[in-house]
Amino acid sequence: MSKVVIGVMGAGNAATPQDLELAYQLGKLVAKQGWVLLTGGRKAGVMDAASGGAKAAGGLVVGILPSNNTVGMSEAVDIPIVTDLGNGRNNINVLSSNVVIACGMSLGTASEVALALKNLKPVILLNQSKSTYQFFAELASERVFRVETASQAIALVKELLK
Amino acid sequence: MSKVVIGVMGAGNAATPQDLELAYQLGKLVAKQGWVLLTGGRKAGVMDAASGGAKAAGGLVVGILPSNNTVGMSEAVDIPIVTDLGNGRNNINVLSSNVVIACGMSLGTASEVALALKNLKPVILLNQSKSTYQFFAELASERVFRVETASQAIALVKELLK
Amino acid sequence: MSKVVIGVMGAGNAATPQDLELAYQLGKLVAKQGWVLLTGGRKAGVMDAASGGAKAAGGLVVGILPSNNTVGMSEAVDIPIVTDLGNGRNNINVLSSNVVIACGMSLGTASEVALALKNLKPVILLNQSKSTYQFFAELASERVFRVETASQAIALVKELLK
Amino acid sequence: MSKVVIGVMGAGNAATPQDLELAYQLGKLVAKQGWVLLTGGRKAGVMDAASGGAKAAGGLVVGILPSNNTVGMSEAVDIPIVTDLGNGRNNINVLSSNVVIACGMSLGTASEVALALKNLKPVILLNQSKSTYQFFAELASERVFRVETASQAIALVKELLK
Repeated sequence: MSKVVIGVMGAGNAATPQDLELAYQLGKLVAKQGWVLLTGGRKAGVMDAASGGAKAAGGLVVGILPSNNTVGMSEAVDIPIVTDLGNGRNNINVLSSNVVIACGMSLGTASEVALALKNLKPVILLNQSKSTYQFFAELASERVFRVETASQAIALVKELLK
Repeated sequence: MSKVVIGVMGAGNAATPQDLELAYQLGKLVAKQGWVLLTGGRKAGVMDAASGGAKAAGGLVVGILPSNNTVGMSEAVDIPIVTDLGNGRNNINVLSSNVVIACGMSLGTASEVALALKNLKPVILLNQSKSTYQFFAELASERVFRVETASQAIALVKELLK
Repeated sequence: MSKVVIGVMGAGNAATPQDLELAYQLGKLVAKQGWVLLTGGRKAGVMDAASGGAKAAGGLVVGILPSNNTVGMSEAVDIPIVTDLGNGRNNINVLSSNVVIACGMSLGTASEVALALKNLKPVILLNQSKSTYQFFAELASERVFRVETASQAIALVKELLK
Repeated sequence: MSKVVIGVMGAGNAATPQDLELAYQLGKLVAKQGWVLLTGGRKAGVMDAASGGAKAAGGLVVGILPSNNTVGMSEAVDIPIVTDLGNGRNNINVLSSNVVIACGMSLGTASEVALALKNLKPVILLNQSKSTYQFFAELASERVFRVETASQAIALVKELLK
């Protein structure tokens, strides 16, 4: 049996302080459940914060890197997957996650939410505007969820994994 | 000097009749300008309609295919680029286009619009809801445009290529 | 009916003068047959020489670029396919070619020959050592061919396309 | 500090009994060193045997899968990376490994050895013919090594990681 892998996606340098705080909590809670955390791997924004949270709780962190080496990688990544695919790696991020949690929004994150839903993965939107939720819900209402806290996200992942 | 390549993206089987009519017109007008038409290459929806329009006007059509062969390809494709990348080919669609026109919306199209904007490509939204425009404009207002007709889209491409 | 696409692969900066001369001839002959020439697109070595030959004969040149823009592209490329896949684009080079011709050898070329044969594409080896031919022939004898001149390569392509 | 990741590549269904035995031993020894084992992830040949060996020794196994789901995955994979890249995932296999060990030869393996060397990764050839070694040594003599046993491969990895 392979491990449960939870993807946490969100803005890099443009992440808000609230995004970062939520991402750190998410990472911690994912690790406490014994799940593997998967992110885009860079030392920036939501990726780095979630990875740091998982690390602090003794979890295992997989980083799917866009470049052809590990320069600029979050120091909390245990297993770097080096893709050399640029933003093309976003499709791998979501295909490799049992559930995707988007914490805040950015162009890269929007592509990941769309690709996750296209690949029939459930997506949990955290700290998102109502209009963002509506945009994606119109395209795949049955697989997109909206929550307000990291704990709610984790509770929902548990439901979705049942 | 390489040729001007215009990408037309949109829903596959879920395309509306209006999407298909607009895509056909777009393909025709792209070809009449002497531009190369680039699509996702499949024999479905907006990809197929735009390709058919370009073909009818004597244009050149490049299809960026998701699978590892040409089964299911639009018959109007002149040059199949066979990627074996699944939805991962969406990033190539937009990187290879000077301007991206999204005709109607779907999950794949949403990923392409997001990736195009992330890669600093201008995106023209055709036949889209106001809320779709607002979602993307909040993320990259300076590169996303909204038009109502195929002719308006072509006029805007001309401006953007100047 | 889509066009016939012939891929010409070979070393970049490490190409020998003989490789370059043969690549130029190949490009010219591919164009004269009305076939599309496909290369790795960079302004270097066999890619650039073959593209220049095709251009000189009025042909159409597709370049599958490794980076996320057209910097460093051969000036003879008509249609740049911008992949942002690094060496990962080598699989697209061979999947998109009806026949692959390897002119000289390098690590990138070796990966392309292996991937072409793996994807069941015929491969013509031009200007190669006997040991290179033997290495690949042991792995896929029925799809790998060895010729000495550009004209022989073209004659063989005609046979293979029948 | 991220973990050490050792890639073991080799034939799928065409693997010889000796390849499989060596791959199983390699997997075991990689795990005993506390290194992560990385393979192409499928339930076939060298990938499956090495993964089984690592599992038996309590190791952690990452499988880089070619398809868009986990059907056909080795049961010993702990962390599936689902790429939907087909053979295009071979570049990720080698980029994500600190050292690549090729156990036996096939077309896919040949592409991985070439891509590994192209990406400046050291490659250890195990159970290979002299002519295979010579083919790759001519292209990158300083990064390609040939050993006869799994223990020799592990001793060499230790040297290379220093």
